[in-house]
Amino acid sequence: MALIRNIKLVIEYDGTNYCGWQRQHNAKSIQQKVEEAIESATKVFSKVIGSSRTDAGVHAKGFVCNFFTESSIPSRNFKEALNVFLPEDIVIVESKEVDKEFHSRFNSIGKKYVYTVLTGSHRPAIGRNYVYYFNKNLNIGQMKEAAKYFLGTHDFSSFKKSGSSVKTSVRTIKELNIDIDGNYIKFSITGDGFLYNMVRIIVGTLLDVGTNRFNPEDINKIISSKDRSNAGKSVPACGLTLEKVFY
Amino acid sequence: MALIRNIKLVIEYDGTNYCGWQRQHNAKSIQQKVEEAIESATKVFSKVIGSSRTDAGVHAKGFVCNFFTESSIPSRNFKEALNVFLPEDIVIVESKEVDKEFHSRFNSIGKKYVYTVLTGSHRPAIGRNYVYYFNKNLNIGQMKEAAKYFLGTHDFSSFKKSGSSVKTSVRTIKELNIDIDGNYIKFSITGDGFLYNMVRIIVGTLLDVGTNRFNPEDINKIISSKDRSNAGKSVPACGLTLEKVFY
Repeated sequence: MALIRNIKLVIEYDGTNYCGWQRQHNAKSIQQKVEEAIESATKVFSKVIGSSRTDAGVHAKGFVCNFFTESSIPSRNFKEALNVFLPEDIVIVESKEVDKEFHSRFNSIGKKYVYTVLTGSHRPAIGRNYVYYFNKNLNIGQMKEAAKYFLGTHDFSSFKKSGSSVKTSVRTIKELNIDIDGNYIKFSITGDGFLYNMVRIIVGTLLDVGTNRFNPEDINKIISSKDRSNAGKSVPACGLTLEKVFY
Repeated sequence: MALIRNIKLVIEYDGTNYCGWQRQHNAKSIQQKVEEAIESATKVFSKVIGSSRTDAGVHAKGFVCNFFTESSIPSRNFKEALNVFLPEDIVIVESKEVDKEFHSRFNSIGKKYVYTVLTGSHRPAIGRNYVYYFNKNLNIGQMKEAAKYFLGTHDFSSFKKSGSSVKTSVRTIKELNIDIDGNYIKFSITGDGFLYNMVRIIVGTLLDVGTNRFNPEDINKIISSKDRSNAGKSVPACGLTLEKVFY
């Protein structure tokens, strides 16, 4: 019997034209494209385990997944073997064999997301699928002040899309930086895990601080209320990129 | 009779899905989309004069064009009025009234282009339409040395797509900088004008210096030969962006 190996993949993708990572009926998913590429390369279907779901339109530079295979393709060569069959908006960045026990979702200890806002006097044509265009004046100092209130361990029920069911809404945010580069504002958020739409609602709420709808210290009250309706709106998916999954 | 005004537009566009600036039969052009937007906004067709042709797949941040109109729309409002009718990959950055004599092509005294090369261990998924992926090791020091030979006034016949007919192939390059930002290499080229495919052939030739096919001092010989076959290949359109047109 052939040796079964557990292969870990790191994937970059442009989520613009997909319904997200997870397979869905009647919609094109990243998972489907990766599973089809594996089947084309190995001649056998392998179910791929993703580190998380990502929403439609969300991008990734370092999405992680794993799958089991009896194929004789050397582990590091899966990168090139799969890239041959993948469309141009999905690319395998790295492939390697990992321990049989490795599970890309259960073993993840954290994730880093970057959300990009573009300001300025006109909507973008170039790179429009990778940013959220927001044309109001923003008080960046107030936003940076507000960002500090998110750090640490909190019940983030106020920053969770209603209807989502998880055991606990307690999460720990280790980093929330706001960096300015010309007209671009980059929000870098690292945490042990994120609730559904959590990053996008946090950014939406920080933009509300930037436009003076909220004061920085209001963040404490919004978190304590555990009420989604007190936080800002969820900003569009296209500005969001999963940068890295930690193990 | 209504007052005829000459309106100058600055346009940003993502050229990925177009045959270039100029109208063509059976292909979608930027010119066509801008003329359609003007007709929708003013109810009258106006021919638009572009500062240059750009090739299929080439992008622009500061393309300039002008058109004459009797419309009562205030000059600065054409920006918003046309953006309503333009697709998401074309956006008017600025509109203003200019002198009746102004001609966006004939009055141009120079242009700045930026060509972006991406190196690294895998092709890009995110932003793939805005870069040329080149995965060979490059000697950047040699490329910067070679770039100096292009500066000044030369007959650039060796860097002109064969078959193109212009009165003279003499052009002046005022700036040719190579900047590195992570895996990105940006070539910024400013000159009084450029021959057909000239920027792309210059970049292709500089990449040949980077891979040691040519020495920096070979550039002099290639220019002097006035023979297209001595220069490097023309790199793909997608890496090229027209940054600015000077008047």
